[in-house]
Amino acid sequence: MSRQAELDQAAHERRDQLVSALIDWVRIPSISGVPAHAADVRRSAQHLRDRACEAGMTRAEVWETAGHPAVFAERIEDPQLPTVLVYGHHDVQPVDPLAEWHSPPFEPAVSGGELQGRGAADDKQHLLMHLEAVATLLQVEGRLPINLKLIAEGEEESGSPNFEALVRAHREELAADVVVISDTGMLGPEEPALTIGLRGLAYWEVRVLGPAADLHSGVFGGAVANPVAALCRLLAGLHDPQGRVAVPGFYDAVRPVSPGERAAMAAIPFDLAGFQAAAGVPALTGEAGWTPYERRSVRPTLDPCGIWGGYQGAGPKTIIPARAGAKLSCRLVPDQDPATITRLVREHLLRAAEPGVVVEVDDLQHGAWVLTDPDHPAVREAALAVAEVWGRSPALIREGGSIPPVATLAAELQAPCVLFGVILPDDRIHAPNERLVLEQLFRGVRATTRIWHRYGALGRAGLSAPAAPPAPGPPR
Amino acid sequence: MSRQAELDQAAHERRDQLVSALIDWVRIPSISGVPAHAADVRRSAQHLRDRACEAGMTRAEVWETAGHPAVFAERIEDPQLPTVLVYGHHDVQPVDPLAEWHSPPFEPAVSGGELQGRGAADDKQHLLMHLEAVATLLQVEGRLPINLKLIAEGEEESGSPNFEALVRAHREELAADVVVISDTGMLGPEEPALTIGLRGLAYWEVRVLGPAADLHSGVFGGAVANPVAALCRLLAGLHDPQGRVAVPGFYDAVRPVSPGERAAMAAIPFDLAGFQAAAGVPALTGEAGWTPYERRSVRPTLDPCGIWGGYQGAGPKTIIPARAGAKLSCRLVPDQDPATITRLVREHLLRAAEPGVVVEVDDLQHGAWVLTDPDHPAVREAALAVAEVWGRSPALIREGGSIPPVATLAAELQAPCVLFGVILPDDRIHAPNERLVLEQLFRGVRATTRIWHRYGALGRAGLSAPAAPPAPGPPR
Repeated sequence: MSRQAELDQAAHERRDQLVSALIDWVRIPSISGVPAHAADVRRSAQHLRDRACEAGMTRAEVWETAGHPAVFAERIEDPQLPTVLVYGHHDVQPVDPLAEWHSPPFEPAVSGGELQGRGAADDKQHLLMHLEAVATLLQVEGRLPINLKLIAEGEEESGSPNFEALVRAHREELAADVVVISDTGMLGPEEPALTIGLRGLAYWEVRVLGPAADLHSGVFGGAVANPVAALCRLLAGLHDPQGRVAVPGFYDAVRPVSPGERAAMAAIPFDLAGFQAAAGVPALTGEAGWTPYERRSVRPTLDPCGIWGGYQGAGPKTIIPARAGAKLSCRLVPDQDPATITRLVREHLLRAAEPGVVVEVDDLQHGAWVLTDPDHPAVREAALAVAEVWGRSPALIREGGSIPPVATLAAELQAPCVLFGVILPDDRIHAPNERLVLEQLFRGVRATTRIWHRYGALGRAGLSAPAAPPAPGPPR
Repeated sequence: MSRQAELDQAAHERRDQLVSALIDWVRIPSISGVPAHAADVRRSAQHLRDRACEAGMTRAEVWETAGHPAVFAERIEDPQLPTVLVYGHHDVQPVDPLAEWHSPPFEPAVSGGELQGRGAADDKQHLLMHLEAVATLLQVEGRLPINLKLIAEGEEESGSPNFEALVRAHREELAADVVVISDTGMLGPEEPALTIGLRGLAYWEVRVLGPAADLHSGVFGGAVANPVAALCRLLAGLHDPQGRVAVPGFYDAVRPVSPGERAAMAAIPFDLAGFQAAAGVPALTGEAGWTPYERRSVRPTLDPCGIWGGYQGAGPKTIIPARAGAKLSCRLVPDQDPATITRLVREHLLRAAEPGVVVEVDDLQHGAWVLTDPDHPAVREAALAVAEVWGRSPALIREGGSIPPVATLAAELQAPCVLFGVILPDDRIHAPNERLVLEQLFRGVRATTRIWHRYGALGRAGLSAPAAPPAPGPPR
């Protein structure tokens, strides 16, 4: 039996144990965005720290931040070996609308090869995937072929407000030859992928203030501005009829996409029907002149994520609402700067404010876009490892989502980033009934042991060529 | 001491008793629009029935409907006397947003000559005003100068869904020479008014359905329709830049307002500064080419009363919402028909639905507009009674609100309608911190005893001339 076959066999035998560990952890409702769950986020951090020790990490600590705590763990085998820093997050998204969950989000259960629960796919499976690779390697080989560090953030789903400060404060301890980010996915169970690009993010809350209190719509209707109507006009004015963002200057910094890049994207086996089915929409739409894959990867967006105002109950209530509000979010692409876009959007909204109402814009979150070099040896070796497990080479894709910490780590540690994750397009992350497909996780463990061995074989020198740094987003 | 002075003196001495009775009744949270309060609405009906008996009505009954119960009471002195039917409602508006109340809405308290509480002004004070006039007249004179009937609806704030059937079922018992509607107000404490026009009403719920569930805005954003954005565009498309309703055909049936009518309206002592202060808005706005008074009385409106969709909590949540919805309401003027307007608005909204979303429109409420003849003796005599108490002639105003039962009573009973109420513009009806000004109520009692005496003196024959029927709204 080859060394890798032995590792695969060991991982296979440990599967039930892995699933049971994941269930235990998903039970902890570590929702970073809901203050009432602060103690749960801390409990999640302590739980992960203990798991890291059990897996064989020689140092495991809860790291405090100004917000929710992070977890750091490491196992240094030999300073001559390459050092890999794994990034993931142990916090999870809120669960509302709760009524749409088929089973309680924090009572995970396995059925049909799937595990349902908030945070199961995004992102707890990935952190356990790495720890499972550690445990398997130690069980079979007694040591790791690399030095491993792991940083698990507790505020990724809340915009990583303290991550940059944390990385700066611990830059020496986090130093690595390569950073592996595990918070992304693949195109399908038989369509493996590595991510080489992420969109950036800017997120605001907009409020429109009108009357001092809700007014009788008969007594006052017609003679006072309606904040809900004014907000609708504000938001409607953010796009032109072709689906382009109508904020002046919004596209100024967008890096042109070449015909060659468009051809390469067209060749990616993107499952359009599956994508539409996962979205559950009657039709795909979007900015004129671009394919659905392009609209969600290389084109920026501006979307309301929520809206509220006035009466939301049953039946009629005849009022002019006192105020209305909305959450607004952009996905940004190279070379858009979140701060510049924030300024443009705010100016546009304030300029468009109608008489009779006051418009306020709060800045909630910024995150830089990411583009990594697909020719870097760290990416190339990871792709070969994935190909061995999935039976075909991974597509190198640009994802629509944003992981602001990636740009932070790339910039602060000056290390190449490899984005390797096993989430599937229909895993319903950020939505009711989030799930993961266990076979993806199991394959992920097998790929991870291979990636570490390949990095170990390549050595520090091999991993650092070419010296070209990754292309991070603009400064935060 | 004159007869009227004796009545005024008696009413004055009974004031504390009246306030205490009102407080007892306001404590009952008779919110017809909230199913959990059904028993309270019934309790309110029973309470009013008992109060009517105490005041001296000789018959007082709770009348069942398919929804919340109504109350009927009468005192027939002499078939030769004119019969007056008083209309009011004993149900109240919902109280949300509850956090904005300075004191609990159903724990009424008197301070500074005001009584705060939901339903205190709209409409419980008016029903007690009439019963107090009865008790005062009986105390001083031992009989009423007219026959009095009273019908108090329990579903006015929910669109009066069963009132027409109730009136039809009891048409004989409700028959009267004149109907006095007490659910309206005045221009100010020293600016008395009688209402001669009300706007009609149509109310809908609009829903925009997109993805099957909330989606990750990074993974899907840009490639799927956003229901919140689509709803905003739908609502934004309902008006043109001049503030006119952009639904084709919306104004087709609007009766032109003559230059003479506009001049008469301009002469009404409408307190524009007070109106703006009561609204609590930085500026009055509305349809181009019309004054604020006209915009809220003789011009129709289309206003969203509420909107919802996606994430409404604290901080960022990066989703494409699965759906969004809004409450939409029109105030209608002669000769707009609520059913026709409903068809036009629905067709317009469905026609404007974008690819990728489904639009649904539910019909929640219809109510006809009202215009009464200002030269009718019943109006003229009521105006003289009000002038005696307030010291100046009441303005004859067209109100912006809607009281669908008025059109029902006018049409079914073929009787003239007099709209006499004492609500003030800043009484915050339908809003947090509803209140009434006690002096208005006390004056209202004094005016009511005068109105009954004037009607009695006029006799049935005098009250029925001229024979011109009131102008009701279009058929329901």
